[in-house]
Amino acid sequence: MPVSDTVSTPLMPYQLPFPADALAEIVVPDAVPKDERLWVPQAENVWFRPLCLNRSQGYWMNFLRVRRSGILSRHRHPNAVHGWVLKGRWHYLEHDWVAEEGSYIFEPPGETHTLVVPEGVEEMITYFQVNGIMSYVDPWGRPLGYEDVFTTIEMCRSHYASVGLGAEFTNQFIR
Amino acid sequence: MPVSDTVSTPLMPYQLPFPADALAEIVVPDAVPKDERLWVPQAENVWFRPLCLNRSQGYWMNFLRVRRSGILSRHRHPNAVHGWVLKGRWHYLEHDWVAEEGSYIFEPPGETHTLVVPEGVEEMITYFQVNGIMSYVDPWGRPLGYEDVFTTIEMCRSHYASVGLGAEFTNQFIR
Repeated sequence: MPVSDTVSTPLMPYQLPFPADALAEIVVPDAVPKDERLWVPQAENVWFRPLCLNRSQGYWMNFLRVRRSGILSRHRHPNAVHGWVLKGRWHYLEHDWVAEEGSYIFEPPGETHTLVVPEGVEEMITYFQVNGIMSYVDPWGRPLGYEDVFTTIEMCRSHYASVGLGAEFTNQFIR
Repeated sequence: MPVSDTVSTPLMPYQLPFPADALAEIVVPDAVPKDERLWVPQAENVWFRPLCLNRSQGYWMNFLRVRRSGILSRHRHPNAVHGWVLKGRWHYLEHDWVAEEGSYIFEPPGETHTLVVPEGVEEMITYFQVNGIMSYVDPWGRPLGYEDVFTTIEMCRSHYASVGLGAEFTNQFIR
């Protein structure tokens, strides 16, 4: 961000100063990456690709990629989730709709649902905004663990270090 | 949402009860609509398609569609914006990067920027989450007006009434 420029040079009318305390933007061209190292493994045949890891507001934007079918996880959300399906399809055992390529989904706070990728789907990729936490539960609702923006950051750091990009590769996505 | 079902029938292990106060989900198949009436005109050759109009938290999810080139607007954001480019490309006069099909962009709170669709782009469509307001300003930063989730809801109501879908067609997107 050209903060120092906007202080030291005369402003053109079209170049209004950014606040000195503003964060930098994140720009990710070709956000569905061809470089396999950018996909962070989360479980067997499940990966995510971070886009924005917002530690200030406690949410994360990512692509979730799944290359297996069956039940992936059962979890409760205390906050809203937004999904936009880029490829493939999935559904929740608790709902009768199917999220397909080109579908937008708002998941309200409070739901517990069980994510399933049906047989025959070789790959699903969905752009998710997850706010707060994913609280994993067993079929009777008992807590099994959770993920939040901080566990997500740690997964990225660990993975990017292991593939040679360096743990600090994660930093570009953190705000 | 099967709230009454979960109260009146025995629960299967895979059907945990939703909170009685939880909102309903939003599911929009084929979210880039073929029905031209779903695009709400915002300015000449500029439309949006609502996905989630969140009056409780003060943000909206939508597709912005532009079929003209040149400067579209100059505006300041007090809150974060997330963009995912579905088609075409655009940029801001204040930045040297270009948002292209397949790009993800995080716009930090505090920026004033000037949206431009370059010559040669017949159509751009971007999935935006806008939090708070779009505060429109002139080239010297003086306020010209604003849009928030409530003005957005009103634009939807007015348009959907005028094309015969009914003002209440908007309600499915409001949470």
